[in-house]
Amino acid sequence: MRATTIHAPRDIRVSDVPDPVIDTPTQAIVKVVAGCICGSDLWPYRGENDVDAGSTIGHECVGIVEEVGGEVSSFRPGDFVIVPFCHCDNTCVHCRAGVQSACANAGFTESGQAEYSLVHQAQGTLVKTDGMPDESLIPSLLTLSDVMATGWHAAVSAGVREGGSVVVVGDGAVGLCGVLAASIMGAETVIAMSRHEPRQDIARSFGATHIVAERGKEGGDAVKEITAGVGADAVLECVGTDQAMKTAFGVARPGATVGFVGVPHGVELPVRRMFQKNVGLAGGVAPVRRYVPELLQLVLDGKINPGLVFDTTLPLEKVDEGYRAMDERRSIKVLIHP
Amino acid sequence: MRATTIHAPRDIRVSDVPDPVIDTPTQAIVKVVAGCICGSDLWPYRGENDVDAGSTIGHECVGIVEEVGGEVSSFRPGDFVIVPFCHCDNTCVHCRAGVQSACANAGFTESGQAEYSLVHQAQGTLVKTDGMPDESLIPSLLTLSDVMATGWHAAVSAGVREGGSVVVVGDGAVGLCGVLAASIMGAETVIAMSRHEPRQDIARSFGATHIVAERGKEGGDAVKEITAGVGADAVLECVGTDQAMKTAFGVARPGATVGFVGVPHGVELPVRRMFQKNVGLAGGVAPVRRYVPELLQLVLDGKINPGLVFDTTLPLEKVDEGYRAMDERRSIKVLIHP
Repeated sequence: MRATTIHAPRDIRVSDVPDPVIDTPTQAIVKVVAGCICGSDLWPYRGENDVDAGSTIGHECVGIVEEVGGEVSSFRPGDFVIVPFCHCDNTCVHCRAGVQSACANAGFTESGQAEYSLVHQAQGTLVKTDGMPDESLIPSLLTLSDVMATGWHAAVSAGVREGGSVVVVGDGAVGLCGVLAASIMGAETVIAMSRHEPRQDIARSFGATHIVAERGKEGGDAVKEITAGVGADAVLECVGTDQAMKTAFGVARPGATVGFVGVPHGVELPVRRMFQKNVGLAGGVAPVRRYVPELLQLVLDGKINPGLVFDTTLPLEKVDEGYRAMDERRSIKVLIHP
Repeated sequence: MRATTIHAPRDIRVSDVPDPVIDTPTQAIVKVVAGCICGSDLWPYRGENDVDAGSTIGHECVGIVEEVGGEVSSFRPGDFVIVPFCHCDNTCVHCRAGVQSACANAGFTESGQAEYSLVHQAQGTLVKTDGMPDESLIPSLLTLSDVMATGWHAAVSAGVREGGSVVVVGDGAVGLCGVLAASIMGAETVIAMSRHEPRQDIARSFGATHIVAERGKEGGDAVKEITAGVGADAVLECVGTDQAMKTAFGVARPGATVGFVGVPHGVELPVRRMFQKNVGLAGGVAPVRRYVPELLQLVLDGKINPGLVFDTTLPLEKVDEGYRAMDERRSIKVLIHP
């Protein structure tokens, strides 16, 4: 099959690789209808993570079931499915506690930007729609495989509550989905920290009540002013850098929680400040499968349209242009059609 | 008055210092009935915190109101009161959110091991009993000024729930009170990590269902075995060292929260591990005032007896012997009678 592969930093290709093959009865193969590029794919692209030369890349997709293993009873070829990027049996002790990303049988989507993708624990992982969804819904359904569920996890982890104030640090697709999550959860004040106009526009359409374009101390001061000197009840850290984390703790009110979902790179947590202010930290790899049923309903009911985070659509053969566009922040998020 | 003062590491004296004087109408002066030495007093004693030579030390006490400022309407001379170590107006936005330790008008008890102590926000801070309590209750009431409320805060921050499993790291007085808190909150499995027999005995009498004497990897393995390979639902970190924090994260199950109340010294939080396992951190300086009414009722009803953490009682003039005994771990916690 044709699949996106990475060979070195900034060396993204579309290559012929072996078709995935079912080798244990819990697996399924999905023919990808739409995949996309994740902010976290940029870490190896930029050389900030090790690159396993020639390996496939891409972990977000939706598609149609092509084949199922013998133990997969709830899905059959032809089903349209959302593929949460972390696979889980959804029955183990961690899954039952709502931490499907720590499943005892966890696996990951390894070729989301490709023609086909292998799902390791298909029975527990996949979520299907009733029949083929309308074409217009594909982008929003695709976000449920990672980015929307991850933004939602940030909001859940931060303890967003009805009537509360929320700051979202990071205006990438995850941050924007965090804004949407906070808004749907009933936060009264939703402050998006963003200096990019197209992202500010999406943040507003997702429910942001305030935009703070300043960074560092000025950004913190702006949040303080909006929150009447108190700071935010909940903060969503959706980047993963030390600066973003510092900003997050800087705007949190005493007793607040920072919900973090950006893969941490070079982050040093301000433990003394956390202690003095009683500001907690929660979150991590999103247990996507846990949230998909609820989010799917919101999409089908027309209550959320997270697919708006895609501002570029490319055919698979041009996936490298998608990486460049996201790396240079010309594009928020790129949808790939195999 | 006579008061405990610190002059250099390991140089604790009882000195004549000026009597406290009310200089703003929100203050009160309390004649100390009983004070005590806190584990955190050992930080400057051991030279791990800076010492302001000649300053008073000690922040935990109960006593009798001696004098009140003009704005203190709920207390009068003769009232027996618990003095939460962090003072608060109990009306500001942070107090109303339950974070009294971040009160906009916060102050601290500065001479708890002395004849008298000044309370800055007496109206919001103090909690009185109905009449003079029985002598036998004094030790337990004294723990409400810090240590019991701090152990309780660790349990609240860690999200201890009925039927859950809890690990308490640290067998000092705070850790033991954490065991008591977890037990009262209905945890089914309460694992105290302790290698000291007298402390193990108190832990058991406070409700510990298991004692783990091993440390490091062996300690983690022992907890794993007790929790059927899963790890603990909630972990209370009651020390403040890097090793204790590492142990805490090592025994937490995915999705758990570490509640921390040990003043962090040299702690580096394992942010990648927290992210991978979705293990959160919450806690900090205990908002003592928030918990005192509930804890007082538990003491008066005979449901908790946290005063058992005091295994040594000394007159004020011998306070230096108390510091030595706690430093050498010959004593768990020392009660001081002025």
